[in-house]
Amino acid sequence: MSSQDVEWDLPAKPRHECGICGVFGHPDAAKLVYFGLYALQHRGQESAGIVCSDGKQVLIHKDVGLVADVFTEETLQRLSGHMATGHVRYSTTGEASVTNAQPFLVTHKDIPICVAHNGNLVNSIALRRHLEQQGSIFQTTMDSEIVIHLMARHMDRGLLEAIKTTFTCIQGAYSLLIMTNDTMIAVRDPNGFRPLCLGVLENGAYVVASETCALDLIEAEYIRDVEPGEVLLINAQGLTSSFPWAPARKSYCIFEHVYFARPDSDVFGFNVYSARKRMGEILAKEAKIDADFVMPFPDSGNYAAIGYSNASGIPMEMGVIRNHYVGRTFIQPTQSMRDFSVRVKLNPVRALLTGKRVIIVEDSIVRGTTGRSRVQSLRRAGATEVHMVVSCPPTRHACYYGIDFPTKSQLIAADNTVEGVRDYLGLDSLHYLSLEGMVEATGLPRDHFCLACFTGEYPVEPEPAFTKEVFSDCGC
Amino acid sequence: MSSQDVEWDLPAKPRHECGICGVFGHPDAAKLVYFGLYALQHRGQESAGIVCSDGKQVLIHKDVGLVADVFTEETLQRLSGHMATGHVRYSTTGEASVTNAQPFLVTHKDIPICVAHNGNLVNSIALRRHLEQQGSIFQTTMDSEIVIHLMARHMDRGLLEAIKTTFTCIQGAYSLLIMTNDTMIAVRDPNGFRPLCLGVLENGAYVVASETCALDLIEAEYIRDVEPGEVLLINAQGLTSSFPWAPARKSYCIFEHVYFARPDSDVFGFNVYSARKRMGEILAKEAKIDADFVMPFPDSGNYAAIGYSNASGIPMEMGVIRNHYVGRTFIQPTQSMRDFSVRVKLNPVRALLTGKRVIIVEDSIVRGTTGRSRVQSLRRAGATEVHMVVSCPPTRHACYYGIDFPTKSQLIAADNTVEGVRDYLGLDSLHYLSLEGMVEATGLPRDHFCLACFTGEYPVEPEPAFTKEVFSDCGC
Amino acid sequence: MSSQDVEWDLPAKPRHECGICGVFGHPDAAKLVYFGLYALQHRGQESAGIVCSDGKQVLIHKDVGLVADVFTEETLQRLSGHMATGHVRYSTTGEASVTNAQPFLVTHKDIPICVAHNGNLVNSIALRRHLEQQGSIFQTTMDSEIVIHLMARHMDRGLLEAIKTTFTCIQGAYSLLIMTNDTMIAVRDPNGFRPLCLGVLENGAYVVASETCALDLIEAEYIRDVEPGEVLLINAQGLTSSFPWAPARKSYCIFEHVYFARPDSDVFGFNVYSARKRMGEILAKEAKIDADFVMPFPDSGNYAAIGYSNASGIPMEMGVIRNHYVGRTFIQPTQSMRDFSVRVKLNPVRALLTGKRVIIVEDSIVRGTTGRSRVQSLRRAGATEVHMVVSCPPTRHACYYGIDFPTKSQLIAADNTVEGVRDYLGLDSLHYLSLEGMVEATGLPRDHFCLACFTGEYPVEPEPAFTKEVFSDCGC
Amino acid sequence: MSSQDVEWDLPAKPRHECGICGVFGHPDAAKLVYFGLYALQHRGQESAGIVCSDGKQVLIHKDVGLVADVFTEETLQRLSGHMATGHVRYSTTGEASVTNAQPFLVTHKDIPICVAHNGNLVNSIALRRHLEQQGSIFQTTMDSEIVIHLMARHMDRGLLEAIKTTFTCIQGAYSLLIMTNDTMIAVRDPNGFRPLCLGVLENGAYVVASETCALDLIEAEYIRDVEPGEVLLINAQGLTSSFPWAPARKSYCIFEHVYFARPDSDVFGFNVYSARKRMGEILAKEAKIDADFVMPFPDSGNYAAIGYSNASGIPMEMGVIRNHYVGRTFIQPTQSMRDFSVRVKLNPVRALLTGKRVIIVEDSIVRGTTGRSRVQSLRRAGATEVHMVVSCPPTRHACYYGIDFPTKSQLIAADNTVEGVRDYLGLDSLHYLSLEGMVEATGLPRDHFCLACFTGEYPVEPEPAFTKEVFSDCGC
Repeated sequence: MSSQDVEWDLPAKPRHECGICGVFGHPDAAKLVYFGLYALQHRGQESAGIVCSDGKQVLIHKDVGLVADVFTEETLQRLSGHMATGHVRYSTTGEASVTNAQPFLVTHKDIPICVAHNGNLVNSIALRRHLEQQGSIFQTTMDSEIVIHLMARHMDRGLLEAIKTTFTCIQGAYSLLIMTNDTMIAVRDPNGFRPLCLGVLENGAYVVASETCALDLIEAEYIRDVEPGEVLLINAQGLTSSFPWAPARKSYCIFEHVYFARPDSDVFGFNVYSARKRMGEILAKEAKIDADFVMPFPDSGNYAAIGYSNASGIPMEMGVIRNHYVGRTFIQPTQSMRDFSVRVKLNPVRALLTGKRVIIVEDSIVRGTTGRSRVQSLRRAGATEVHMVVSCPPTRHACYYGIDFPTKSQLIAADNTVEGVRDYLGLDSLHYLSLEGMVEATGLPRDHFCLACFTGEYPVEPEPAFTKEVFSDCGC
Repeated sequence: MSSQDVEWDLPAKPRHECGICGVFGHPDAAKLVYFGLYALQHRGQESAGIVCSDGKQVLIHKDVGLVADVFTEETLQRLSGHMATGHVRYSTTGEASVTNAQPFLVTHKDIPICVAHNGNLVNSIALRRHLEQQGSIFQTTMDSEIVIHLMARHMDRGLLEAIKTTFTCIQGAYSLLIMTNDTMIAVRDPNGFRPLCLGVLENGAYVVASETCALDLIEAEYIRDVEPGEVLLINAQGLTSSFPWAPARKSYCIFEHVYFARPDSDVFGFNVYSARKRMGEILAKEAKIDADFVMPFPDSGNYAAIGYSNASGIPMEMGVIRNHYVGRTFIQPTQSMRDFSVRVKLNPVRALLTGKRVIIVEDSIVRGTTGRSRVQSLRRAGATEVHMVVSCPPTRHACYYGIDFPTKSQLIAADNTVEGVRDYLGLDSLHYLSLEGMVEATGLPRDHFCLACFTGEYPVEPEPAFTKEVFSDCGC
Repeated sequence: MSSQDVEWDLPAKPRHECGICGVFGHPDAAKLVYFGLYALQHRGQESAGIVCSDGKQVLIHKDVGLVADVFTEETLQRLSGHMATGHVRYSTTGEASVTNAQPFLVTHKDIPICVAHNGNLVNSIALRRHLEQQGSIFQTTMDSEIVIHLMARHMDRGLLEAIKTTFTCIQGAYSLLIMTNDTMIAVRDPNGFRPLCLGVLENGAYVVASETCALDLIEAEYIRDVEPGEVLLINAQGLTSSFPWAPARKSYCIFEHVYFARPDSDVFGFNVYSARKRMGEILAKEAKIDADFVMPFPDSGNYAAIGYSNASGIPMEMGVIRNHYVGRTFIQPTQSMRDFSVRVKLNPVRALLTGKRVIIVEDSIVRGTTGRSRVQSLRRAGATEVHMVVSCPPTRHACYYGIDFPTKSQLIAADNTVEGVRDYLGLDSLHYLSLEGMVEATGLPRDHFCLACFTGEYPVEPEPAFTKEVFSDCGC
Repeated sequence: MSSQDVEWDLPAKPRHECGICGVFGHPDAAKLVYFGLYALQHRGQESAGIVCSDGKQVLIHKDVGLVADVFTEETLQRLSGHMATGHVRYSTTGEASVTNAQPFLVTHKDIPICVAHNGNLVNSIALRRHLEQQGSIFQTTMDSEIVIHLMARHMDRGLLEAIKTTFTCIQGAYSLLIMTNDTMIAVRDPNGFRPLCLGVLENGAYVVASETCALDLIEAEYIRDVEPGEVLLINAQGLTSSFPWAPARKSYCIFEHVYFARPDSDVFGFNVYSARKRMGEILAKEAKIDADFVMPFPDSGNYAAIGYSNASGIPMEMGVIRNHYVGRTFIQPTQSMRDFSVRVKLNPVRALLTGKRVIIVEDSIVRGTTGRSRVQSLRRAGATEVHMVVSCPPTRHACYYGIDFPTKSQLIAADNTVEGVRDYLGLDSLHYLSLEGMVEATGLPRDHFCLACFTGEYPVEPEPAFTKEVFSDCGC
């Protein structure tokens, strides 16, 4: 396989692990969750699933594929009931498989329990080893199954108590939904790594979702975020909030604003589009470049590019055009077609580029392989100078809280100076946004964020050693 | 079915009929044509096909679906030979069917002949009636089959002579490729309604394609356009040009520049992106509006919006975000979700729109139903004023030359004043680009274009009555 | 590919070309034809199709596959109308293709005409050449298309006259159904090679079918056979019979009784099961063998085996058991599994065979390759003697009238003595039924049959040279 | 839904639960197991699966469908390794689902364990309740999962000890295969309800299978049956036999000989074909009838019919012909087609039946609905007298050991006298084989069999009450 294929196959960008959405109190709960997942599709494209209940019976449908492929009108009609929980997922381990699709549903002592999880547990290996020692059989390799096993051991003491005990053992990032046949529970970890928000439909039904764009599509009104460390219990009696664990330092994932979340969402209390545009504006002040025009590579740098153009006065152009008919299967080009993997999706406008000095605005650089091809394709289309500005600092450290970053050794910025990266990408100049500039663009104080991928300072110890004390604390 | 469904089902925009691509003289001809069709996919998404030959055997593969779905690596490997012709198609008559997929291939007296056609014949009914009277059996309802039947009757006199005689009978728009087992022929009608260009690969192989974007993707160098009324014959001896018919007034379809062609293509000798941007610039002079920002509805008005923003000084924003995961099947929303058919694909950025006066830039208005929903969705997201500028004049007349326009009665501008359209769409103001402005943006003189959809002046009489003389002229 | 694979891939038996069924005058015409085709599935398994009409609109559905796979409840519901014609087919030329599926339907001068054909024309090449010379374009390689082209040229003179003229030009075997939007016509060639019968439903609707088993399944009452040289025209006015051509010598295909037709059908006026059983009885008199038991290889020799056992007094056993779960795809056995291709479908009963002298009853031997494996598998399962009796004489000549026999060079009996075949098959003895015995079993005189595959005497000259006179006769 | 549909949908015959096959010590183990399952397909048609190992890695493939559909050449090639275990299954609970497909594979403390099970546990509900109380989470509703959970709790003491303890808790019928990454274990319950046999391939590899027909197809030599209560452990060191539990009364399922097993298999030490033929012979002595011929309904009574014909001297005919092209989907007949569900599959030979007195030989009568339609179809085809002989006594009691019998209330013989059944079926006379005659035909003493479905005497108490002692015995 040539290096070109590698560029094609490897994800150019970090990938999200999951999106979740739940509705309680509407006759079309599953259909509303379907549309919620539809809006959250950018958070995971490998599998999708919905579990629903009418208060008695629990039904499930999940499969590998996009939301629009996994569910049909018929499937949704069968998923009747007033409550439903859904999930979209990236499998981080190779092949997409329906076994690892979520929500994860079991029936324990005749009580159905399902879990839909966004995030990543850092002590899952230790927990699994402990549970297996006691005779538990695991069906999947998912963190979410550990949650179920722990809960099962404490359900006799009631659902809320089971959750409290379960998550006392668990460390890491978890924005999740738990559902039985009559109750829905939203849990966000005390650090609040991943977003989770609460909304209400016109008829009074509650909606919980990873991002507000899911609320918007189904016309739910945004109420507030589920708070770090909060447990929201929703049942026929209404909504109850509790904070069963000791509070922790807030550790919002700033990458949600840099790259992950949908621009029309409000995440951690402020709008993503606006934050990205401000990042571009601040970048224009930090990195002044003499050029003919600014251009994004659709759609990664669109909003920062608008900000950069506005603040710098350099006009913006669509120097490459996105092809909307890119198929899933990839046919090998026959000859040595250059930059093919880039050009087949993003078509350079030769008439625009010829003889021009251009500034590319990117939201992030991960491996750099794609960026390298992109720069080459612009030069071949006639650009005389190619500069790049990036709307975040260099990403140099792995993420343990739910983002499918490459390992540290694959992050181009980890072992290279900015000049090294610039040369690898074949740029005339390369400018990263400063950490301060990035945080400033959000409007929140720096200590509200997890900045580990930039700084290496991890709010929660990744992959801690196994200690018996963990379990004696929770009594598992 | 509610009116909302109607909006969803009916095409909001005129649809192209076809794109064609041929390669002569390359060992991977079919694979190159595959990528050529890939680049031309915007010209037709209902079926795709390739016919190829190694000089002896002729092979065909075609099916309903997108290029990337119709062909697999295995299929392409089987399509061996140094020459290939491909086609992408919109069926204008209801259901997509493989019967009407192109290229259309027959074997007549042991000689395989295939035709791939972009355009529309205006005297096809008369021709078909005449041929049936003489015993011909038709398999399809396609114009292209008529071409084959006429050619078959004259093949004894040689291929070029057969083509000359055939197209003497035929009236209308035809940019087409004809291929036998050893010869490829490109024909463009004397008016030159549809584009057709010629390129060359590094190894000297010729490429003919509807647009230059196909040349760009396969790294062919653009040579020149196939001229109106020109017949290009390509075989082992090389390329021969002839002009067998009387010249006619040039009638380039200006809608290629307004809406159809890909922005990175050069069509009729100039770049589409640049033309659209100029339309926006001229529009900014013709229609001055006081507003907070300009926005396109991706991706229809992107380039005119850039032009309008530049010329007016009003900043551009991405007021709606395109959802890239829209599936093909449509699930009915459960409640009366408002503007749903718009919002599911184009998500308004509430944070941006709230309290703002916005100008939408559109490339055209056909039925108006989609536009109406779009305006409503912006108002619901908080916009206080919504203005619209359109980068062409009102489209008031049907097209007979290969564009799947609605009938005149469905064109909202046909029977309404600009004020009427404005009120129907729910706008604060509506401004169309003038005919002169549109033509000016192209840089070509007005009499080079077919402007029939705006003016009702048809360069070639549509659907002429049947006259025996037609056939006595050509001797069929 | 080893010889074992060859045995697997090549058909062990001659294959039928087609079965046809038509219903006129029932509100569920297409559904009844569906069941008729279902009953005729043994006559062709590669494609199936139905054309129907309500007197105005004509609808068609056909595809590659078995009847039960090609049609769904929904498809059949769409095929509304009181008249319908159906077809099942073997493609004799390699790959199964929907292009060559029947019925063949065209619309000529706004009149839909469809043809469903069982048999084989012997002068099709000459006819096609002649028609192409006059400008006709052919879509398929099927004989049936020639019928349509010829008819189209004479339709102005009325349907019956067109048929009379058309079949004056045509030579060979044809039992066929022609249908327009309001008329159904059944035609059987003057020699009557292939069967065709007429029945009536309880409501008075007419049914035409290749075999009576189709009538039985849909509970139609058998009226009589369509006679050789007869044209039956069925329309709203009722049924009209005519005999437009000169009578010819009857030439019923005796292989219908030996092998092709379903045992529960009556063909050419007598029951197939009974004829086969009588063949076995006569064989028992002609070939006396000392053995422990008689056995068929299911299901080819079942009925002759019963006759042989009855007449000889030697008990019958099911020495091999048919596996009813044989799939379509074939996985290569891993080691040198012997006789695998036989044993995977027909499982020898070791407990029965060990130490026994057995007589296999077969209906025919074509290539002999399968037979050879079968004999070996019985010997390996413990049989001490293996004899074979065949309920027809050696097949030594090709068929030109609609049976997909191998070419003469592939018929094992063509160039071998009975002793040679016996040795090739590895038998202790081999006995064929005499020609006289075979004819006697039918109860009809010898001169009513085509016996060409046994005698080489062809009732109609196969592949005659092209003569202009043919067409001057019919005026085409 | 009319009563006719009910006949169609409900299984006319009891259905098997499962077939299993394992190979240890052959480089193509998975492929051989594939063919073994192919031969055992009659024991279960709803799902199929294979688990294999090369001593380290364990791979699995299973799905809903027939063996030939579930596995492709590519799938089998991926399933590499020298050991493999396979399973075919009937799901007795409604919808076929891949969740309940077997083998059931888990990884517990990094050790893969799989189970393939034929039979039914009678104390599964109690066991599951006990395990859940201790925190176990179940993924399926299958008995086999209980086996895995119990084993997991004892694996620290070694595989054999874990098995010994596990099956001390378990009551019921179990012929099963357990496989880790390096060991295969065959277990048959102390009563020996279901068959299980051992064979050897030419290269010395061991094969374990439900029936000998699996050995025959892959050319393994039969060694002996796995004995009731025996545990066979096969690993790189060879084969070890042990009998860890107290011996119990033999309780072979006689229905294997009456109906289930394949005729070419030897089951419980004697051939099935021969036993069935002897049942027919004894029946001819017990039930003398004056008739024109004996006939089976293929293929249920074929072998008993041969026996009956031989012993009675009444000739055998194939009065109905099996249609080999019956599809899986069922199209509703349009009019009131009588006996349609029978006739579409089994076509009566009218010419044979008209005016005849016939004896149908059946292997069993369960609900009677199908039999009733069959009798009617023969009368309509002209039979003047219809008698039936059945090669087993009336089945009056449910089965708890792995056969999917209808409940007692659905067994027609449960609440009806023989005369009552005769009248319901519309017969002239009805004769069942006596219990003594049935046992005599097997050659084994009566006390070696489970005859519960005929007598109601259950060798192992079905569905025992939950007692804590069960678990204190085994220490779970």
